[in-house]
Amino acid sequence: MIRAVYPGTFDPMTNGHLDILTRAADLFDEIIVAVADDNNKQTLFTPAERLALIEEEVNGQPKIKVMTFCGLTVEFARRQGARTLIRGLRAMSDYEYELQLAMMNKKFAPEIETIFLMAQVKYSFVSSSAIKWASRLEGRIEDFVPAGVERALREKYRLQAPR
Amino acid sequence: MIRAVYPGTFDPMTNGHLDILTRAADLFDEIIVAVADDNNKQTLFTPAERLALIEEEVNGQPKIKVMTFCGLTVEFARRQGARTLIRGLRAMSDYEYELQLAMMNKKFAPEIETIFLMAQVKYSFVSSSAIKWASRLEGRIEDFVPAGVERALREKYRLQAPR
Amino acid sequence: MIRAVYPGTFDPMTNGHLDILTRAADLFDEIIVAVADDNNKQTLFTPAERLALIEEEVNGQPKIKVMTFCGLTVEFARRQGARTLIRGLRAMSDYEYELQLAMMNKKFAPEIETIFLMAQVKYSFVSSSAIKWASRLEGRIEDFVPAGVERALREKYRLQAPR
Amino acid sequence: MIRAVYPGTFDPMTNGHLDILTRAADLFDEIIVAVADDNNKQTLFTPAERLALIEEEVNGQPKIKVMTFCGLTVEFARRQGARTLIRGLRAMSDYEYELQLAMMNKKFAPEIETIFLMAQVKYSFVSSSAIKWASRLEGRIEDFVPAGVERALREKYRLQAPR
Amino acid sequence: MIRAVYPGTFDPMTNGHLDILTRAADLFDEIIVAVADDNNKQTLFTPAERLALIEEEVNGQPKIKVMTFCGLTVEFARRQGARTLIRGLRAMSDYEYELQLAMMNKKFAPEIETIFLMAQVKYSFVSSSAIKWASRLEGRIEDFVPAGVERALREKYRLQAPR
Amino acid sequence: MIRAVYPGTFDPMTNGHLDILTRAADLFDEIIVAVADDNNKQTLFTPAERLALIEEEVNGQPKIKVMTFCGLTVEFARRQGARTLIRGLRAMSDYEYELQLAMMNKKFAPEIETIFLMAQVKYSFVSSSAIKWASRLEGRIEDFVPAGVERALREKYRLQAPR
Repeated sequence: MIRAVYPGTFDPMTNGHLDILTRAADLFDEIIVAVADDNNKQTLFTPAERLALIEEEVNGQPKIKVMTFCGLTVEFARRQGARTLIRGLRAMSDYEYELQLAMMNKKFAPEIETIFLMAQVKYSFVSSSAIKWASRLEGRIEDFVPAGVERALREKYRLQAPR
Repeated sequence: MIRAVYPGTFDPMTNGHLDILTRAADLFDEIIVAVADDNNKQTLFTPAERLALIEEEVNGQPKIKVMTFCGLTVEFARRQGARTLIRGLRAMSDYEYELQLAMMNKKFAPEIETIFLMAQVKYSFVSSSAIKWASRLEGRIEDFVPAGVERALREKYRLQAPR
Repeated sequence: MIRAVYPGTFDPMTNGHLDILTRAADLFDEIIVAVADDNNKQTLFTPAERLALIEEEVNGQPKIKVMTFCGLTVEFARRQGARTLIRGLRAMSDYEYELQLAMMNKKFAPEIETIFLMAQVKYSFVSSSAIKWASRLEGRIEDFVPAGVERALREKYRLQAPR
Repeated sequence: MIRAVYPGTFDPMTNGHLDILTRAADLFDEIIVAVADDNNKQTLFTPAERLALIEEEVNGQPKIKVMTFCGLTVEFARRQGARTLIRGLRAMSDYEYELQLAMMNKKFAPEIETIFLMAQVKYSFVSSSAIKWASRLEGRIEDFVPAGVERALREKYRLQAPR
Repeated sequence: MIRAVYPGTFDPMTNGHLDILTRAADLFDEIIVAVADDNNKQTLFTPAERLALIEEEVNGQPKIKVMTFCGLTVEFARRQGARTLIRGLRAMSDYEYELQLAMMNKKFAPEIETIFLMAQVKYSFVSSSAIKWASRLEGRIEDFVPAGVERALREKYRLQAPR
Repeated sequence: MIRAVYPGTFDPMTNGHLDILTRAADLFDEIIVAVADDNNKQTLFTPAERLALIEEEVNGQPKIKVMTFCGLTVEFARRQGARTLIRGLRAMSDYEYELQLAMMNKKFAPEIETIFLMAQVKYSFVSSSAIKWASRLEGRIEDFVPAGVERALREKYRLQAPR
């Protein structure tokens, strides 16, 4: 059985993430969505909130598990017995950042392979930070995120800055 | 009459911005310089200061108006009855960021068109943040910004860190 | 009246070109599609064929004219009394090439302005050369080019390499 | 059983290709190395020669088959019952070209997934064309290609330009 | 005698920095490693700590001096009688940032030349920030930094977040 | 005495090349401009013509020699007793190509160092191929090349295509 880890911050999950996840699930026997819990990185949602928003979407898909993790991604993958990491590439993502990360990871854990899937064209410009920016300014983001995430973003910003 | 919006943070306006603005004024009947008032973004100058520094330069040009705005740029453009956004591209600007922004905007307001003008070669490496960095370190920036901006930067940094 | 020139090789025109053209027609009073006739550049279609394929699509739109030209684009624009060039930018186009071209043109004709429009997301990976490559290998290209172009490509390759 | 296709021109195969192939063989049950036979593309080696040079290296690995193919890669994959394409990414490869190709392929065959593996750091600047250039100028390329390829290149250039 | 300045934040120095420094020492008669003391930039190590970590490595090399500096790099170079700045370029560095900086510097001090050396392939993905990130997450960084830096990082993070 | 080699095709030399050469002459005791004589590469000017056009400009500068060479650049440098190669970088050059080349060269001749100088802003979009393209279409190129090169280009194209 081939188990793969799909790591990220997912602050919050977008339809782009969901699309990568669904396609990766066709290639592997089990996927662990690994939500980074890094207290040096400022996030809008807590790790538990980010995990819950993902679980709401993948609920009932037996191949997909969602977990939070601390520390190096490759160490988490090792502990889970996974030898593959999955990363999405957008036409407009910071490609160099992804390669740098993959090369560091290869150095830390040579036996773990990173595979990249390409975002669909229609999600090629969607990122978590763009979604947060647009949501904060009351842009209509319902084509870019699941309904649960859209609701959560609305609540989050209403709490912070009610209008 | 074709009205266009030239949005930005303008913290502060540079000669590069001014050059784009002047050239855009040849193409359209009216240009609204739209100064973003986004309290989630840290700026050196307040929205009112940034607006004043621009107005000092474009004063007396009947085609050009300067305003501040909150919220999505495309919503502001709609309220002003403008169907065109203007953006400058530098040889060394973050092109991908500009395209991502334009694609989000197209999604939010399909009827609004973004047009890009290219910075002149001599301004291709000038950005507001580079200007602030150089000014703070007492570099001579008078070729890159209007005199009023140069003065305002000097005052701003003198206040913060007198020497 | 503002007249703009939309120059290119158009070997052949794609839906991406057509989309840029349609949107530019909203911004200007008259658009001249300028088909480059450069005998140093190898093309699949002759200048006359490329012009005809465009005319077939824009037929009846009074704002749009199609012409072929030799020599520098800016000289052609000058002769036509146009002060604006239009270029499309794709997320995956050679951005640097476009800027280099625009800077050379600015040097040759400072009074002529180049404006860039961004390709729609769905055309962001469509180029004339990709279309020719796919068509030659019998890929289905009907979503990327007008019907007339699709037919012309099929005939062109049938003549060269009948199967 | 998951079967994947690793397509390319392989003119000639480098150690970078071989490394991607070896690592992909860990992820899939069967890999078909697909050597493009495209008579519109000028190559140094014939399709048969390129196939033989690969076979010499992968000989005896039961999971790996080598074949030549004409036409679209995704059509070849379909005929072979494969739903996955493998592509290598180098730090200095033309990333945009790979994405454009993947997007076209996704359009032609939505059910086929392209996965990308990253070249090892030490091969990040190795390409078939750089190898040919260096070999032609009598550079020492033995760290970058298998011994058989090095021999074949020497013979090829000796025939063309004996010294 | 040709004196060159190798400026940077060095927070902390990596083996990549050390490699550039060693190679630059072959080209010039004297190198001043210039550690930027910019209190607007958040660093993990103080200027004095960063200087000490470099000195520990270059100790005894008569051609190399280490100093901290405030203000513009080119002004520091002038005061030291140096007419050359040295910068490293990584395959995956922000090339545009380096060029922008070099162009600003050229404007501020036309008589000072910036020369770029390319990082070795094996260091092409190593940056101070990646090192800090990996160290904080307890990754093994001993191949990327001198032993003294590795020890200093361990102490720094133990103080902040003992485990 | 430090001797450096400035290699290139120089088909033809531009003011950008000349500027790099002049600045490099401040850094080294002797510069050999090395004109590549590679019969696999199509050039407009013969190696002898390219050499003559450079010599016309650098005539009388005792530090600068001009030579043609075949084979690998690093082998030529070795034969000349030079340990440094000089390359220019333009804001819009193919940076990746330069790094790939430098990495191959480092592999072939570890003792030879490549240093990069940055083109001046005003030459950042000038390349030999852009010059040839503009000259062929009768663009005014006198700001971008020495007078001798401008004359040679005019003659070359008049011979090929008199008007």
